[in-house]
Amino acid sequence: MNLEISIERLDAFFNPSSVAVVGATKRVNKAGHVIFKNFVENKRRGVFRGELYPVNPHEDYILGFQCYPKLTKVPDEIELVVIVVPAEIVPEIMEDAVAKKVKATVIVSSGFGEVGNHELERKVAEIAKNAGIRILGPNCLGVYDSNTGVDMLFLPETKVLMTGEEVVATPRPMKGNMAIVTQSGAFGVATLDYMAGRQMGVSKFVSFGNKCDVNEAEMLHYLLHDDETKVIMLYVEDIKNGRDFIEKASQVTKKKPIIAIKAGRTEAGARAAASHTGAIAGSDRIYNAAFEQTGILRARDMEEFFDAAKALAMQPPAAGRNVAIITDAGGPGIMAADECELRGLVVKRFSEKTLQKFEKLKKDGKLPKFATNLNPVDVTGSATSEMFEYAAEIVFQDSEIHGVLILGLHHTPALQEDYIDRVVRVAEKYDKPVVACDIGETEMALHTRYRFDKLGVPAYSSPEDAARAMSILAKYGLYLQKKGCFKDYIDAFLKEKRR
Amino acid sequence: MNLEISIERLDAFFNPSSVAVVGATKRVNKAGHVIFKNFVENKRRGVFRGELYPVNPHEDYILGFQCYPKLTKVPDEIELVVIVVPAEIVPEIMEDAVAKKVKATVIVSSGFGEVGNHELERKVAEIAKNAGIRILGPNCLGVYDSNTGVDMLFLPETKVLMTGEEVVATPRPMKGNMAIVTQSGAFGVATLDYMAGRQMGVSKFVSFGNKCDVNEAEMLHYLLHDDETKVIMLYVEDIKNGRDFIEKASQVTKKKPIIAIKAGRTEAGARAAASHTGAIAGSDRIYNAAFEQTGILRARDMEEFFDAAKALAMQPPAAGRNVAIITDAGGPGIMAADECELRGLVVKRFSEKTLQKFEKLKKDGKLPKFATNLNPVDVTGSATSEMFEYAAEIVFQDSEIHGVLILGLHHTPALQEDYIDRVVRVAEKYDKPVVACDIGETEMALHTRYRFDKLGVPAYSSPEDAARAMSILAKYGLYLQKKGCFKDYIDAFLKEKRR
Repeated sequence: MNLEISIERLDAFFNPSSVAVVGATKRVNKAGHVIFKNFVENKRRGVFRGELYPVNPHEDYILGFQCYPKLTKVPDEIELVVIVVPAEIVPEIMEDAVAKKVKATVIVSSGFGEVGNHELERKVAEIAKNAGIRILGPNCLGVYDSNTGVDMLFLPETKVLMTGEEVVATPRPMKGNMAIVTQSGAFGVATLDYMAGRQMGVSKFVSFGNKCDVNEAEMLHYLLHDDETKVIMLYVEDIKNGRDFIEKASQVTKKKPIIAIKAGRTEAGARAAASHTGAIAGSDRIYNAAFEQTGILRARDMEEFFDAAKALAMQPPAAGRNVAIITDAGGPGIMAADECELRGLVVKRFSEKTLQKFEKLKKDGKLPKFATNLNPVDVTGSATSEMFEYAAEIVFQDSEIHGVLILGLHHTPALQEDYIDRVVRVAEKYDKPVVACDIGETEMALHTRYRFDKLGVPAYSSPEDAARAMSILAKYGLYLQKKGCFKDYIDAFLKEKRR
Repeated sequence: MNLEISIERLDAFFNPSSVAVVGATKRVNKAGHVIFKNFVENKRRGVFRGELYPVNPHEDYILGFQCYPKLTKVPDEIELVVIVVPAEIVPEIMEDAVAKKVKATVIVSSGFGEVGNHELERKVAEIAKNAGIRILGPNCLGVYDSNTGVDMLFLPETKVLMTGEEVVATPRPMKGNMAIVTQSGAFGVATLDYMAGRQMGVSKFVSFGNKCDVNEAEMLHYLLHDDETKVIMLYVEDIKNGRDFIEKASQVTKKKPIIAIKAGRTEAGARAAASHTGAIAGSDRIYNAAFEQTGILRARDMEEFFDAAKALAMQPPAAGRNVAIITDAGGPGIMAADECELRGLVVKRFSEKTLQKFEKLKKDGKLPKFATNLNPVDVTGSATSEMFEYAAEIVFQDSEIHGVLILGLHHTPALQEDYIDRVVRVAEKYDKPVVACDIGETEMALHTRYRFDKLGVPAYSSPEDAARAMSILAKYGLYLQKKGCFKDYIDAFLKEKRR
């Protein structure tokens, strides 16, 4: 199948002109109800613009929509079918889909390969393949698209606590430029919950489940051409068609960063993965090598996964490993320096020229006499907002410094909120990445991190998290340089940012 | 000096019958004002019960208290003196303290060894030593005691944003059983901010600064005998009297866990530490060896520091490395299993007996037919609260399992809040540690973690964090076993818990 056709076919998953939900029902706790209701609500809000058809032989109307007993009884064309019926009747539904000439199907139903019913899964896949119908799933959560209103998440949006209070349980994050591509539905939903709470914006969410047809390689390639997506967050347990994956991923990472969690690294993890999705995990070293080769950035754990995605979405990659740290807090400065070096960054001694600039500031009384102009720069507990601004200007000017960490702990008496804006204004004059950290979990700390984030500087709650985020920006920058596409990436990034 | 005298003298820092603040002032932005005001407010609220004397030759009354021109003019006995005057007049103040026969002094003032004035620091230390007066500092934040109302934190409690809104900037955490012992004032305050926001309770906070007299070794020993303290959180950049430290720490860790951050691990970090407190860091390997030998648990980073402290405060140590994972989320279960194994825990295959119990539950329809009873136990997306309870009961019963991780992702449709209480009730019948995880940053996830915490089961926001917390509990348990004091510790822990 050639490329454009492939992309067009996958488009049906995210932006279908018409959708049928087979297994839609009035029974409120059923997946078939929740999915259909999501579409109905998004249509009423004007977000989902396609046509909508419930299919269920036992209902006349659902939520005001006329219900059809069979797919083939729907009078109009159907582009996408969401299937939420027991596994054993899915082949029959797929035959109907063939008859209706649909483009794509999402099989939400479970009961296939993941419980040993490989034959059933093969049968369904074959029917679809012969007719050129694409399948997402089976045993998946399907698609959530923040722009088109396609939303197949059937998990309860709210739950009721023992007190009777109703609370948000499965939120949708705000619109944004990060796409989530996940083999684990549970981890995918958890990702949405995390990103909603942390105000990280999502473009598209795809859950693969057993991936009997559409897989990671193809989806990554699709997202390469998706204007809404700038960063791809990938969770995998196994990759089946390695060569294809490596080829596609290599194309993608030249233009868009992919940050990945590969679960099943250890023997116990691999055993669990095998029983979870039937994945034969293969040696972790092989995956590491494949990720290195293709420029996929591997997150060590969940927190790094989110932290890195945020950094990559907000900041350009670094042109090298040399970083400067500016802090008003000696201890946390050391912690950041430690983590930078452990991650392969270089907390470089500054050039003579830079040191002279610092000395001049001290002589002029613009920095405390006992400020340290080694790296980390410690503007001390007497730090003012201006001091952070002056120090930032000097280290950004230094051509040997490729990235800057700002550790402005808000507790020091003289530091005021405006230091954030001052530092950001300095950073915006340069193409170098900057990340921030403030420690604390009460009002001023939360506000400081929020304000940095809002101004496009990713802020973290520990020195080490900030250092790790910077190390990912450097790793990606070095990869892009190796591939000769660093400059193009930076240009595109800055153009987009200044738009 | 013999032990009891030492402890009595250090008591004056935390529970003084009378305090003089030298350098108290009416000028609201000054440290001398904030510190005095903290004491006044705590006295008015009935928390601080000692006498209080401001000392300043330029004031008559401060906040309604009669002010004395010199320490020696105070008519009554003084136990503790807090010194907040320029460094150069500190020797003179110390002479007055000698004349007044005070027990202890906290030198908040900076301008000593940390900026090269070693001679001045030595002079002050010598005056005090000759008179048997103990010193905390100089260049430190001193003491915060949540029980006695001693509070020397001079950082602004609130700040005003650009919008005019006043927000909390330096909060005090609630009362609790974790003590903070820190060489870095900045990190110490950040710790208070973190713990206040995460509702972790603090007993005592001590900031050492240049530690010209009282140091870590002695403070750890003091805290060993402090009934309010159960877990000690230690931040160090260097340790000067290694042998003494090792001796004291070894005594403490048999009864109370010490979780430590040792900053300055790398060359850049050590360089920064040297310029920060003049610390000669020494090889990181030496510190690692010392920590191993003394049973001090070393946190890899800030987050592990807090996560481990919480686990140690809430749960008993594990009697071994074998853990069970129960989850309703395949992917996160694998992530937890990976991290457990990477940290030296064993995600053990269950015994035949345990497997049979699981099979029986499945046969009885009490667990889903396709639940996995390998380890992790995956009760699947159809999980109910009862299923978590049944599965927990089985793994807790297994004598080969030493600790349990509960990964109940709340998103699954049938899982309700009551699963938390059910699991906790099961856990309470056994002496094994249990930790929990739910992923997400919106209402239900936050509530779930809060509820677990409240019931004494430490809850974490990522599978890896939960695994790391359990690995610390196992590490501590193995140390206690090696030292032959595991059983005593567990008995004391459970007695305290059931009190």
